[in-house]
Parts: sequence; structure tokens; C-alpha cells
Amino acid sequence: MKTFRVDLKKVVDDSYDIEIGYELAEKLVEDIKNGLVGRIRRFAVITDTNVEKLYAEGIADRLQAAGFLTDLFVFEAGETQKTRKTKEQLEDAMLAKGCRRDCCVIAVGGGVVTDLAGFLAGTFGRGVPFINYATTLLAAADASVGGKTAVDTPLATNLIGLFNQPEKVYIDIDAWKTLPKRQMISGMAETIKHACLADFTLFSYLEQNMDAIYAGDREACTYIAEANCRIKYQVVMKDERESGLREILNLGHTVGRAVETVSGYRLLHGEAVAIGLAAEVQLSKLLGYMTEAEVLQVNRLLEKAGLPVTLPSYIDREELVRKLYTDKKVRDGRLRFVLQRGIGSVVEFEPGCYAVPVAEETARQIIATL
Amino acid sequence: MKTFRVDLKKVVDDSYDIEIGYELAEKLVEDIKNGLVGRIRRFAVITDTNVEKLYAEGIADRLQAAGFLTDLFVFEAGETQKTRKTKEQLEDAMLAKGCRRDCCVIAVGGGVVTDLAGFLAGTFGRGVPFINYATTLLAAADASVGGKTAVDTPLATNLIGLFNQPEKVYIDIDAWKTLPKRQMISGMAETIKHACLADFTLFSYLEQNMDAIYAGDREACTYIAEANCRIKYQVVMKDERESGLREILNLGHTVGRAVETVSGYRLLHGEAVAIGLAAEVQLSKLLGYMTEAEVLQVNRLLEKAGLPVTLPSYIDREELVRKLYTDKKVRDGRLRFVLQRGIGSVVEFEPGCYAVPVAEETARQIIATL
Repeated sequence: MKTFRVDLKKVVDDSYDIEIGYELAEKLVEDIKNGLVGRIRRFAVITDTNVEKLYAEGIADRLQAAGFLTDLFVFEAGETQKTRKTKEQLEDAMLAKGCRRDCCVIAVGGGVVTDLAGFLAGTFGRGVPFINYATTLLAAADASVGGKTAVDTPLATNLIGLFNQPEKVYIDIDAWKTLPKRQMISGMAETIKHACLADFTLFSYLEQNMDAIYAGDREACTYIAEANCRIKYQVVMKDERESGLREILNLGHTVGRAVETVSGYRLLHGEAVAIGLAAEVQLSKLLGYMTEAEVLQVNRLLEKAGLPVTLPSYIDREELVRKLYTDKKVRDGRLRFVLQRGIGSVVEFEPGCYAVPVAEETARQIIATL
Repeated sequence: MKTFRVDLKKVVDDSYDIEIGYELAEKLVEDIKNGLVGRIRRFAVITDTNVEKLYAEGIADRLQAAGFLTDLFVFEAGETQKTRKTKEQLEDAMLAKGCRRDCCVIAVGGGVVTDLAGFLAGTFGRGVPFINYATTLLAAADASVGGKTAVDTPLATNLIGLFNQPEKVYIDIDAWKTLPKRQMISGMAETIKHACLADFTLFSYLEQNMDAIYAGDREACTYIAEANCRIKYQVVMKDERESGLREILNLGHTVGRAVETVSGYRLLHGEAVAIGLAAEVQLSKLLGYMTEAEVLQVNRLLEKAGLPVTLPSYIDREELVRKLYTDKKVRDGRLRFVLQRGIGSVVEFEPGCYAVPVAEETARQIIATL
């Protein structure tokens, strides 16, 4: 028996910039001309049918005009399209157009597009660079920092994918005005979540400026776009692989994801997360981590944002309780929740562990009140 | 417009050991008990129908007996099964069995199994650890070092995948005796390739010991297993992402891959590579990099190994010439070949560039002689 050692220790620099502003297509093309992705001359712009005409075609046209070989790849909009099959179809279309290892992917759209295209880029030719051009508040709040890319499968959400960092992210706030109101409201849930778990100043800002944000006020929108990046970055930078601290980003998601599934996706992700936050603050109060006044304050902000804080009548409460056990934080068959400590902080249950064990009966009791 | 900087610079250590020996299943289980993959208690053993009974079941049983939760996942043997579909079926089976992010994949088999399972592990739960238990000479020569994992698609070979390093590799030479003779011979082509491009001592050793290797001589088999690892490691360590030097591992593969495809996979990969090597030494001679005597010496070794050095009559030469253009080294529409300088060295055409431009007419002329 002989042992051969393969030494592969190295420094990796996945750093990147997030550009936050209005109508950033021209800036994107300028950056590419100035060497953002080195000497790459070929681009695959990936988008969905919602964003195709609004932004993706414009970006593809500008790249073409600048002399880059550019193809546009469009898939049907919708959360249900974030599948291995869509990825496969896009890959085949790219290969048929002649894309090989020397191309760069540009994802133009919301979280579904950036999750899917970022994953695709990570396995195309064993990894080509990609750029995110985020057009929704949710993508700004959630998908711009953290490097999580994935698709869904019939048995699991987001379980097939990669940690893959983009070359750069553009958050085009101008695009938010094209979002249906319900989508914009849904995206606000992750912003409120960020405020609840890490930043009381942001929480107060949202209380004061919710109407201004929805009215498209530039200063207010820029403020929350940047605050989202900052909060998520602070958490993710300390824990890139989701071992401990990163779990706190799951605030509201234990019940939230279960509600989303049991609703048969009638509720949007953010709507389900809002209900999850409402459940979580009740739990926090019950376990002594929040006051009644703080609970009311969170509920009021969710309602002010136009988000639901109670379960629709069609949700089967018992099914919901059972569904909680599919949560990734479940350990040794026990439910675990991330809980707030007041507003702007979370409970560190044990050193480095932010998921608090909760008895099924307690969870059931809270769900009954929603 | 505001810019937010995401700093993600870090040290990554993907180092691992390759254990070379006989009947290593027990060693594998010992290593796992001793913390090879940390505190992971759950294993997904992935294999194909050829290796299932021979080795994979035994490994799974030993792990079970040692108290680890272990499931065996088997797919149909064969190069044509290295697809996204097989990957998807395995993923769904693993999810159905309850595998999540806390599992480790063990690939037991040849290059198809290790390529596929290594890719799967890299995207399962956004990446779980994997271990390779290599049972073929080809896997020992090619798949144990380099971190390349991938599947094939209708339009491209090995173009969807990842660079993904295993936790450890076991090369079980005992398993070579279970290989059909034709597979063993095919695997020898990559070993001869390694000798041709980097190691005249190995070349001489093969000239002297080919019969001993095929007879299963322990010392000789261990020697070539280790030599393969060493040569590939020296090349790959200097160029993990295949920018320049790593291209030299493509020796014989420009014609080889084209022959494999045009034969409709009637030829095994190694057989096609042997024909590719025979073509490449002729080219090297024509361009003044090898002597006639050296060309004969390479051909004699290939023949001694039982490998073909001429094209089967059913191969359409013109189709073969056209197929050369699908090679990944083609640049600006020009064919490029890695060429030997004598035996044990390659031509560095320009600093850091090892692919030599070759006129189509020259390639056609060489192919006509095969």
C-alpha cells in the first residue's frame, strides 16, 4: 500500500462589486468593455419571459452593438420553472449556438433567473463566469449576496445547486417599477426579515418610509437596496457555507417555507415568509425573548407593507405542522427555529448555534393562533 | 449610483491522499471511522451494474456494519449513461432515501462512475464531500488526479460538470483483474500517453514490463498506478484550470476523440486515443519534432499493449477531418495539436502554449496514412 499526496492549497479571491442604481445596462456594457470578465468576447444572456422585452433584449442589443457575440436565451417565467429540465434546455440551446468554455453568462431578472443562471454558469464547461443583473426587490434583498444558486426538484427546494459567486451584480432599482404590486410587496418580506434579525435602524426606517419606497422614492429605495446588501453580507461573510451564523437568515422561513408548500404556491414566497415571521415573533414572545409590544410592532410593519400575518383559511394546520419537519434545521427529529431577541437581534442558543429547539406542541399552539 | 464591495478572499485547501494498493475496502472504512469526512454518519455509495456485486455491495455492507447509515445507488454500466438524466435519477433516489446536506458520496467504479458521482456530489445540497474508489486502470490513470467531473450531452462530451476535488482516492489494483481484457488494454492507452508526454523512464518500464502488468504482477501494477498519479499531478498542480500546460494531457486526443465519435463508440476511448497517438507521432515527425526511430518505438509499444495504431476501414476519413474542428483546442477556426518532442517531452510552441497550429491539409495527409 502506497500513499500519494495531492497538495491543492491555494488562495481564492471571489470578491465582487454590487452596483446599485437606475438603468444600469449602459454601465454593464462599459464595465465589460473595460475588462470586467477579461478577454471574453461571447455572452449568453439568460432571462425569463417577464423580463425579456423589458430589460434583457436591451442588454443583448447593447452588447451586440459593442461588438460582442451575444445570444439571448429565454425561459418561461415562474417559480415552477426553476428546474433541472429548464437548466438542461438552456444548456442545449447554448451548446447549439456554439457557446463553449469561453463565454460569460449574464442573468437578467429576479431570483428565479439569477438562481438558475448562476447554477448553470457554474457547471457549463466546468464553470464560466457570470454576472447578475437583478430586476426585483427580492433579488436585491436575497440573491445579490451569498453565492447560493440552485434549482428545485419534486422532493426538495433549492437542494441541487452550487455556491457560486458572480463577477459583479447590478441592482437596477428602475426595474422595480415594472413589478406587479403583489411581487413588490412580497419582496419586502425579506427586507423586513433583515431588519428584524440585524438592524433596528432599518426597521425604524421602514416604519417611516414604507409609502415612499412603494411610491418609488429614489433615496428610500437606494437606502433599502444597500441596507439589504450590507446586512446579508455581514452574516454571509462570517459564514459562507451556512454552518452556524448563516442560519439566522432563516428567520421566519421555518413556518414560511412550510406555508408556501402547503398553500400549493398560491402564496408567494414573501407572503409565506411574512406569515412565518408572525409565527416566529409569537414563539419568541412565548419563550421570553420578545415583549408583547415588540410583537405588535413587527406585525404592524408587516401589515403596513401589505403583507399577510395570518394563515389563509384553506391551509390545513395539521399538514403545516407535519411539513415543518422537512425544514433543513431539523436535527435528531427535533424542530428548531431561529428566534428574535427583541427587534434587530437574534437568539444565540448555544455558542455559534442560532437554531432553538422547539417542542412540536409549542409550534402547534402558535400555529393555532395565526 | 452606489457600489457595494463584497470581499471574499480566502485560503482553500483541497488537498487529498491517493491510496494505492490491493483490496482497500477495509482501509476505506477505517479511514472514515477515523474522521476522514468529519462527523458525517450517512453515506451514498454510487456505482454501476458492473461493479455493484464485485465491490460496491461489499463496501456498503462494511459501512453498515460499522454503524453508518448507508444506501447503495446503482445505474446501468456504460459510457452512454454518463448523462444529466442518470445524475437526475440518482439525485431523486438519494432525496427519496432522505439524503440531505449531511451525507457523503462514495463513487465505486471506473471513470464513468467517478466522473458522474463526483459531479453529483458537487451539486447535491450545494456540495457534499465525496470519495473515489477507483476499480479500473483508466480511473487510476485519468480520474484520480485533476478534479474533473462531468457528464456528456448530445452536443458535447464532458462539457457540463465541475472541478471538484475528492476527500480521498483509493486505487484498488486488485479490481483490475475483474476487467475484461479489452478494457484493461484500453486503459493502458492513457498510461502510454503519460509516458510519451512526460516520462521516458516510464516509457522504458512499459516496454520492459507490459506482459508482467497484464499478468497482474504486483510490483509492476503498483509502479504504473503511482507513475500515472505522479505525472498527472505534476501537470495539473501547475495548471488546475486548464489554461496552458494542462493542454498537454490532450496528447493524442485531438484525433482520438474524433475517431471515438466517428466510430459511433465502437472503439473504446483508449483504443481511439491509441490511434490518436499514432497520428500525433506522425505529425511530430513531419514537423521535425521526432525521428522515424522514435515514431516506430511509440507504435511498437502501442502494439505491444494490444492497442490499434491504424484506422478501422469503416471510418470515413473526410468525416474524421471535419470532426477535428469540434476539438476544444481549435482557435480562430484553426486546428491545434499537442505534439511530442522525442519521447517523454512535448513541444512548447510559444511560452505557456503547448498546442501547435496544424494546417487541415497536413492533418488530412497524416490521417490518409493511418
